[in-house]
Amino acid sequence: MELKALIKDIPDFPQPGIIFRDITTLLQDPAGLQHTIAQITEQGAPLAADYIAGIESRGFIFGMPVAHQLQTGFIPIRKGGKLPREVHSIAYELEYGQDQLEVHQDAFKPNSRVLIVDDLLATGGTAAAAAKLIDKAGAKVVGFAFVIELNGLAGRNNLPSDIPIISLVQY
Amino acid sequence: MELKALIKDIPDFPQPGIIFRDITTLLQDPAGLQHTIAQITEQGAPLAADYIAGIESRGFIFGMPVAHQLQTGFIPIRKGGKLPREVHSIAYELEYGQDQLEVHQDAFKPNSRVLIVDDLLATGGTAAAAAKLIDKAGAKVVGFAFVIELNGLAGRNNLPSDIPIISLVQY
Repeated sequence: MELKALIKDIPDFPQPGIIFRDITTLLQDPAGLQHTIAQITEQGAPLAADYIAGIESRGFIFGMPVAHQLQTGFIPIRKGGKLPREVHSIAYELEYGQDQLEVHQDAFKPNSRVLIVDDLLATGGTAAAAAKLIDKAGAKVVGFAFVIELNGLAGRNNLPSDIPIISLVQY
Repeated sequence: MELKALIKDIPDFPQPGIIFRDITTLLQDPAGLQHTIAQITEQGAPLAADYIAGIESRGFIFGMPVAHQLQTGFIPIRKGGKLPREVHSIAYELEYGQDQLEVHQDAFKPNSRVLIVDDLLATGGTAAAAAKLIDKAGAKVVGFAFVIELNGLAGRNNLPSDIPIISLVQY
């Protein structure tokens, strides 16, 4: 299945000069949804993760069914101020702006294995911040999985070189 | 399995007087996650939905694995300004504040059947707005599913009385 055919390009969103890759068209197609989750699950399974960490909010969409398939726990990595209990926090640069990620301090059992899931690898700033946050929380990042990778931004160069990266579609 | 034992009560979050029901503790438990998704899937299956609509952002967490299990499409109902293409939009009152929901105009095939999923039924304002939005978009709401229902707020009285409501845990 050609997933790219189900992803819509939106020029100048959310800012001029950015081509937004819209995955809602992929999600509304039942076969596209099944194929996407099957691919991440199949490629992620050998990493033997104890937890899937999904980055708010599109990482929730792809991360949770993978956690369900792999029978792991699911940990939401959220924007600042959303989680109700004690958090670890990290600020980071976005492709367009700045933001903050948080995770509950007791999210992970010590030394557990974590697969980070998000929809898109752009500059890698968000994923790198999520990895640092998980490290702070006492767990070990064993992989990254993205539906889309923007090769032109070389985001994988900003991620630790010894951790496997899964990406289903490249632009 | 007693799901309530896996949900943590947080007093005075996000505002004084509100008891926040924290489902992250449920999600980090693999057995709790499996049981929750199995329950929604089993109770939702007879509704024969063509789409699961998840309300941002905790509705994404529970809605997407249900869409995956039921082999439907998944439609994100998002806060204002997040979706990149032409949207239908609706403003609504929250338990604490006001907000706006949007859905892509072409999200649903005409007259398709939609199951709305969210983590929590409180006053029902968000779910009722999501239902109106789906109606605007030319599809038919055939059910609501929530992990948690706050009986004291009588939210189900604000939802159409002829549409089934699934809720797994009541307070």
